[in-house]
Amino acid sequence: MRWAENFIAVDWGTTNRRGYRVGPGGALEDEMEDDRGILSVEAGGFDQAVAEIRARLGDLPMLMAGMIGSNRGWVEAPYVPCPAGLPELAQNLKWVEPGRTAIVPGVCFSDDDDADVMRGEEVQILGAYAQGLVPADAIVCHPGTHNKWIRLKDGRICSFRTVMTGELFNLLKGHSILADLLALPAGINAAFEVGVRRGLETPHITAELFSVRARVLLGKTAREDASSFISGLLIGADVRAGLALAAEAEVVAMGRPELTSLFAAALRIAGRTAREVDGEAAFLGGARHLAELVQ
Amino acid sequence: MRWAENFIAVDWGTTNRRGYRVGPGGALEDEMEDDRGILSVEAGGFDQAVAEIRARLGDLPMLMAGMIGSNRGWVEAPYVPCPAGLPELAQNLKWVEPGRTAIVPGVCFSDDDDADVMRGEEVQILGAYAQGLVPADAIVCHPGTHNKWIRLKDGRICSFRTVMTGELFNLLKGHSILADLLALPAGINAAFEVGVRRGLETPHITAELFSVRARVLLGKTAREDASSFISGLLIGADVRAGLALAAEAEVVAMGRPELTSLFAAALRIAGRTAREVDGEAAFLGGARHLAELVQ
Repeated sequence: MRWAENFIAVDWGTTNRRGYRVGPGGALEDEMEDDRGILSVEAGGFDQAVAEIRARLGDLPMLMAGMIGSNRGWVEAPYVPCPAGLPELAQNLKWVEPGRTAIVPGVCFSDDDDADVMRGEEVQILGAYAQGLVPADAIVCHPGTHNKWIRLKDGRICSFRTVMTGELFNLLKGHSILADLLALPAGINAAFEVGVRRGLETPHITAELFSVRARVLLGKTAREDASSFISGLLIGADVRAGLALAAEAEVVAMGRPELTSLFAAALRIAGRTAREVDGEAAFLGGARHLAELVQ
Repeated sequence: MRWAENFIAVDWGTTNRRGYRVGPGGALEDEMEDDRGILSVEAGGFDQAVAEIRARLGDLPMLMAGMIGSNRGWVEAPYVPCPAGLPELAQNLKWVEPGRTAIVPGVCFSDDDDADVMRGEEVQILGAYAQGLVPADAIVCHPGTHNKWIRLKDGRICSFRTVMTGELFNLLKGHSILADLLALPAGINAAFEVGVRRGLETPHITAELFSVRARVLLGKTAREDASSFISGLLIGADVRAGLALAAEAEVVAMGRPELTSLFAAALRIAGRTAREVDGEAAFLGGARHLAELVQ
């Protein structure tokens, strides 16, 4: 039986992991998700953590992507330089057990001025392209803890930029003077739109952040609007950084639907159209195509 | 005996407090500092926390400034709107015990577009002016957890902007993916200067932050340079936001000397001259002048 007709694909991140059993014809036969991200696995504990997945989903060949291949993960899988397509990823799989267990390499970008790295998003993006969900030439916005803006050219990742928006939002919510305001629910509403417009226009995001608190203290912004406004502000600034690289009318927003909907809304406010692609479906497609290339 | 010839001045912040006993002729007779910032004082515990200061420095009239007058402090002292000089502060003291214990109000700024607040810095800035340490018309950079850029006009605070640089640095150092890099020592060196120049020029600070990690991973930046670079990057972005308000060749950098030296270095890289003023001396001067106005 071909490898690709019966294997496990794992998207193993910093704080959680998702595993899928893929059967004949690419069918999704079973799946699991838990909070055993790489940071929760003690040194030397990865063999056991991997065995848990097989115990749950079956004793099958396994393809893993994400932070599991980082220097904080199980076995380091060196980055593949841009331009990178699925063939380059397949050629550079890091085999932990030859023929049975492999880690997908991340992708790096480097020029005179910039440097950037990704792990995990590459499988989604190239998987979406392989499935015809995005064109061969596209700009992709991938929101998450570390948001990525990726330029796809001829079906390969040719450059990208990471913006720390998700992590910054979490830091502010968890530990900053804005924490009490961010404890209130946020949504896509009028305050979000005002925030997005501000974030799109100001180059001084760290000044704008404090002014939210001041506006609430002085009664110029309603307390219950602050969270949506801050969310909009950070996403607007993120979109500003991303669109500095992109003249396209259409931007692909890929990832978790609750995040892509926020970025799609901000992109529309910025005058672009947004094509939303579910990151989980894209990942599965990418894993299936990689498994085909393993043969 | 006049009030101003024998009183206690307290600069009471979020995480610590400093108290000074001022004697005849404005002499500094005794001082104390501890970590009893307002966040460490339980609700209802401020009477006792204030009594500790008198037990330590003497049973004297007391003038307090800073977050002690905020809605998280002891008794709220409403903000005085810009333009605000020492006379406006004195007229709006919040008397907790009439004639004996007062809280200096903070200052707020508000126009169609912006809103901002300060508590504590106003005594330093107006105190420095009253002592002739800064001219009547000046731009003042006051680094701290919440950095302030203050426009002084005719010896009064006429507008200001807060940039969350200090808090952001602390969040990144304490809780972010950059924490391990920021655990290494930072200084004013070549990497700091490269960071400052980058921060002065880029409007995408949240993208630049992640790229530091990528540069280290890809071997483009030495690991031991990352902390100084990030410090420079954040300070450069802060100076960019502040100088957007200021055409002056000279900027006053006021506050804790270990912070003003960093900002003075960044200001010189940005082509300005910096006049450093010690914040503690400025605070004491401001408190003495306020005590005179209390009579």
